[in-house]
Amino acid sequence: MGGLTYKTAGVDVRLKESMLKRIREHVASTRRPEVIGDVGAFGGLFAFKGSVLVASTDTVGTKAKVAELLDSHESVGADIVNHCVNDIAVMGAEPLFFLDSFSAAKLEPTRFERVVAGIAAACRDAGMALLGGETAEVPGLFNGNEYDLAGFIVGAVERERILDPASVREGDALVGLPSSGLHTNGYSLARAIVDRSAHAEGVEVLDVLRLPRPDLRGGTLGQALLEIHRSYLAEIRALRGAALVRSVAHITGGGWEGNLPRALPEGLGAAVDRDSWIVPPVFRILAELGDVPEDDQWITWNMGIGLVAVVAGEDERAALRALPDATLIGHVERASGDHRVRWA
Amino acid sequence: MGGLTYKTAGVDVRLKESMLKRIREHVASTRRPEVIGDVGAFGGLFAFKGSVLVASTDTVGTKAKVAELLDSHESVGADIVNHCVNDIAVMGAEPLFFLDSFSAAKLEPTRFERVVAGIAAACRDAGMALLGGETAEVPGLFNGNEYDLAGFIVGAVERERILDPASVREGDALVGLPSSGLHTNGYSLARAIVDRSAHAEGVEVLDVLRLPRPDLRGGTLGQALLEIHRSYLAEIRALRGAALVRSVAHITGGGWEGNLPRALPEGLGAAVDRDSWIVPPVFRILAELGDVPEDDQWITWNMGIGLVAVVAGEDERAALRALPDATLIGHVERASGDHRVRWA
Repeated sequence: MGGLTYKTAGVDVRLKESMLKRIREHVASTRRPEVIGDVGAFGGLFAFKGSVLVASTDTVGTKAKVAELLDSHESVGADIVNHCVNDIAVMGAEPLFFLDSFSAAKLEPTRFERVVAGIAAACRDAGMALLGGETAEVPGLFNGNEYDLAGFIVGAVERERILDPASVREGDALVGLPSSGLHTNGYSLARAIVDRSAHAEGVEVLDVLRLPRPDLRGGTLGQALLEIHRSYLAEIRALRGAALVRSVAHITGGGWEGNLPRALPEGLGAAVDRDSWIVPPVFRILAELGDVPEDDQWITWNMGIGLVAVVAGEDERAALRALPDATLIGHVERASGDHRVRWA
Repeated sequence: MGGLTYKTAGVDVRLKESMLKRIREHVASTRRPEVIGDVGAFGGLFAFKGSVLVASTDTVGTKAKVAELLDSHESVGADIVNHCVNDIAVMGAEPLFFLDSFSAAKLEPTRFERVVAGIAAACRDAGMALLGGETAEVPGLFNGNEYDLAGFIVGAVERERILDPASVREGDALVGLPSSGLHTNGYSLARAIVDRSAHAEGVEVLDVLRLPRPDLRGGTLGQALLEIHRSYLAEIRALRGAALVRSVAHITGGGWEGNLPRALPEGLGAAVDRDSWIVPPVFRILAELGDVPEDDQWITWNMGIGLVAVVAGEDERAALRALPDATLIGHVERASGDHRVRWA
């Protein structure tokens, strides 16, 4: 039995990238003069009334399955909000409003209210209005009790405040901020690992998720997997107040190689020292249980760093002073070819 | 074997309404001063830079299952766009940009590209930018090949141009515009009917969907069910140019009673003459095959009218002249109680 990868768990990140190439022309055909930038940014930019609107959408994916198993629905509501908040905050935007789309085979009022309570709490934390939503009862679409939760965010930024990857220079500092766990990505792999581990030990999936583990300080894998996606809104604001921030990457689906280059211009890459922080236990436990090849870990999970800010080299110290839990994790260097994140 | 209803087909419209009551306080807790109006409008209103942004979200629901069966994915892409366009157009808004969220157990590049091609085409028709999207591969969440498609739209309207139900007066005219079919609602009931019909006749579901029917002029039920959700953007513009439009209702999930009152203030209701238009064959065929009680038909489907504009009484004729396929279907009257649509 070989090691598990995101692909064997059913998610093909490369396929997703090739699909995005296929749709590029369709997207381009809808372009209006107000649209700024190209496909592939964390948020879409749209000039409006002398300002720029920034919009993004995401789903909680199969983290909802873990939430369903462990009956933790508020957390999933907060996850989708914070994921979206980060996606526009890395463009430099402040959140304005949020909408959610919830689909399930069967609507359960209490569960749904708990999801919305989590959404509303995270919206309040971000100072953002929950402006609308859709609740769809779609019998036959889902397996059993599963649900799908998508979020949609709109924020705004003044044009000159947009964080633009084109402004990044060789030698800029990469400042990393800790994640709270897997955030909202890589759960199909995590679930495959838990399933296989349960099968191998002859126990239930819930037993694996609820086993207190010394390396989680007595906590369980289930708790670690449901840690809420951290919002970096306050940190990005603080960082911009203290240092010249060129661009920011949110480390989400596709892991490091899938996201850090999105904050860099063509011709530049990232030299990252993986010894500059300690990979949190949840990632090590999952990797061990699933015998996951190291490369696959890093293109699936954030591995403990959920956000990377690219800061002007001379402001490196100011940035680290502004954010007590930040770490200098590397520098920007010249790079060509497909791989733009180099482990240094 | 009794008649099929939306509820026996697995969708409980009343439950959905009671759920929306439960979340009202959570939503209110996120209110910012820019938010205009209350929960329950077709689109959310957010004042921004002297203008008002209007946002809405919806899903194609189980229409995607019919599309999957009949391999018609461009149409579903256009459905979700037009649904969203109408939801903000009835608030008075012009579309600015759109984002989509596509989730499937397995991403199939060709199918996905076809969905996006349909989305892009409908965005171009509406003069709207496709600004972003999310593509989630979520193994284990869905039955087989199913997918979930959600859309998010943002438009804008000048404050004095917002179509406001509070402005509606007793005696105003109700002007109806034909739908192209079920649009994007009531498919769980339609599918239950087709399933039962196939079972009763001992044939496959595809046979029922592909049978040429004289009452569809030789067309099939499958074709009728996949007719693209009609966009009323041009009609709403034309109507506002010709007549004093007070408010507009998009007849979607929840049918007539679920939507027409959303365009009316407290204390007013609608007297609708159901003989003023001919219910299209697709609804009659489905109702007959499923032995669907008449009330259930009207709280599930649009029954041939996809949009109802509330027009100042004195502008009734001007409105009908501006829109060749419009019909005067009734008038606004005083009403109290739960039922605000009266069949007159």
